[in-house]
Amino acid sequence: MIKTDILIIGAGPTGLFAVFEAGLLQLRCHLIDALPQPGGQCAEIYPKKPIYDIPGFPEILAGELVDNLMEQIKPFQPGFTLGERAETVEKLEDGTFIVTTNKGTEHQAPVVAIAGGLGSFEPRKPMIPNLKQFEDKGVAYMIKEPEMYRNKRVLIAGGGDSALDWAIFLADVASEVTLVHRRNEFRGALDSVEKVQELKNLGKVNLITPAEVVGLEGNKYLEAVTVRKNSKASEDLRIEVDAFIPLFGLSPKLGPIADWGLEIEKNAIKVDNSLDYQTNIPGIYAIGDVNTYPGKLKLILCGFHEATLMCQSAYQRIHPDKKYVMKYTTVGGVTGFDGSKKEAPKAVVKAID
Amino acid sequence: MIKTDILIIGAGPTGLFAVFEAGLLQLRCHLIDALPQPGGQCAEIYPKKPIYDIPGFPEILAGELVDNLMEQIKPFQPGFTLGERAETVEKLEDGTFIVTTNKGTEHQAPVVAIAGGLGSFEPRKPMIPNLKQFEDKGVAYMIKEPEMYRNKRVLIAGGGDSALDWAIFLADVASEVTLVHRRNEFRGALDSVEKVQELKNLGKVNLITPAEVVGLEGNKYLEAVTVRKNSKASEDLRIEVDAFIPLFGLSPKLGPIADWGLEIEKNAIKVDNSLDYQTNIPGIYAIGDVNTYPGKLKLILCGFHEATLMCQSAYQRIHPDKKYVMKYTTVGGVTGFDGSKKEAPKAVVKAID
Repeated sequence: MIKTDILIIGAGPTGLFAVFEAGLLQLRCHLIDALPQPGGQCAEIYPKKPIYDIPGFPEILAGELVDNLMEQIKPFQPGFTLGERAETVEKLEDGTFIVTTNKGTEHQAPVVAIAGGLGSFEPRKPMIPNLKQFEDKGVAYMIKEPEMYRNKRVLIAGGGDSALDWAIFLADVASEVTLVHRRNEFRGALDSVEKVQELKNLGKVNLITPAEVVGLEGNKYLEAVTVRKNSKASEDLRIEVDAFIPLFGLSPKLGPIADWGLEIEKNAIKVDNSLDYQTNIPGIYAIGDVNTYPGKLKLILCGFHEATLMCQSAYQRIHPDKKYVMKYTTVGGVTGFDGSKKEAPKAVVKAID
Repeated sequence: MIKTDILIIGAGPTGLFAVFEAGLLQLRCHLIDALPQPGGQCAEIYPKKPIYDIPGFPEILAGELVDNLMEQIKPFQPGFTLGERAETVEKLEDGTFIVTTNKGTEHQAPVVAIAGGLGSFEPRKPMIPNLKQFEDKGVAYMIKEPEMYRNKRVLIAGGGDSALDWAIFLADVASEVTLVHRRNEFRGALDSVEKVQELKNLGKVNLITPAEVVGLEGNKYLEAVTVRKNSKASEDLRIEVDAFIPLFGLSPKLGPIADWGLEIEKNAIKVDNSLDYQTNIPGIYAIGDVNTYPGKLKLILCGFHEATLMCQSAYQRIHPDKKYVMKYTTVGGVTGFDGSKKEAPKAVVKAID
């Protein structure tokens, strides 16, 4: 059982910044995220894309913002349960919550903050009859540990940035990389498309277009895939592979949280924006893109504010007897749980003679 | 008459960021501030001090934050009325407001956003009987244009960072710099104290401590000051000067805004935080440290959020017939009023053969 003060569901920018604000209040946080790394969409969907509306940054890449936030919260030593989806919540008699993931990991906290963005990102899957039977047995929809594919024969399907980028990355790792796409045209960053063209010319990536994977075979583990060229003249190809990785994009789903008894409106969780972004279940808050209220804007900068007010309310909930007096970081500095201390240089009082 | 879409009173971080959010909505802004430069407290009081709780910045100097915000809003060409205090507001029959400053400058806008922080910063003044008669005639409480003091004889009073820093700066500009402080000990950054010690040793700053300025004389313009040493034995000194600059700190005052008919609570303006941070006067909003609502935190990051929601509401007010569909800057880029355009590199659609 993982125990913490504030259990944050979703490790996107809003969830990450909540760790900082909680830390200033001496509250510890643990984050659960379905994706394999922190950062949410910023890290998974558009790490190399610029954002222009983060206050104080005329321009920042989404991936840089995540890196900065990770650096900012480091003193507060957050825990992470990654690659798992929060599945169920249970409220104990003492008022604390138990949140269990799809892999059975249990977390206990007096406060739960849902910072789930648009939901947990679920892969779009191709329509292949026996696909499910090979999941985690050669078929994967996300690449968590690229080293798993060292010296393996890998077939990637897809025509976007993920397919291109992983084909490029795995060309140096796998023994064989095949890229299958249902069109001749790929959609992605120019340099990625050009790099794949170059790898194809060098014989380091096998390209089959326009084509689709239509069948899988194997005895327990995946052994081969059937690729159908989208031209009537050709016969189906049988390609022996160790891994089939369809990268057709991720689609956000509110998922099991929708069944937690929270008030939901248009796929978002209703909160009290006039006070502390608490949901209809006392002790459960919703912050960032996952929540809704009159005038809501799904902007990262709004999530930062919501996370901050949530933490103040959480503090009162966790310490009903204490009165917290806010101290500016410029005045009080930042004292980490790791013993680190950052603070402004102190003024001296010194005679001049 | 200066005309704009959103008239922002206060050019601190919150007011500055409002320009950006307004710009995304194609609304133009003009800012009024009593201080001689944008940035509010961050620029005037603690430009060299670090802030640790701006999201995405593990540490940023307050002055840097202001510089970054100025850079971020540059495409939206804000206007500034600096060194003037918003004094009166008048609502016209067409629903627009006229705001006039203490120097008589008039501004007209359909929306007023008060981002006044703790109020306009008013200098603390020494108790010298005829002080007022020499204001702007040799006596100044803030230094707006240091060049005014070139080759002049300047006497600075005070023992904090401002007094130290300006003594150092003016040592190279003025023909004579005298620093008077009622104690021997100065309170400030160590290197500033050491630098003044060095300048004193070099004879570039005359130091008189512990002492106070007790009298001013001059025929229309200031000609000399009387300095009383705080030791009973000494006689008063008469020092001929062109300028007397008492730097005893700035104290924020809500000021004339307090008489605008706004609901005030504990020196702050009450707003509707459940929607758009509007005050009890429709069309007048209050954002950032100047406002109050249940759970309010006087943090810069909260001001950013409030500014953003204010702009959305202002847009509806200014364009009641238009429906605005929010576009992410990562997707839609930023198009400045100056013709500039920033946007993410577009994906290509390209065949690999």
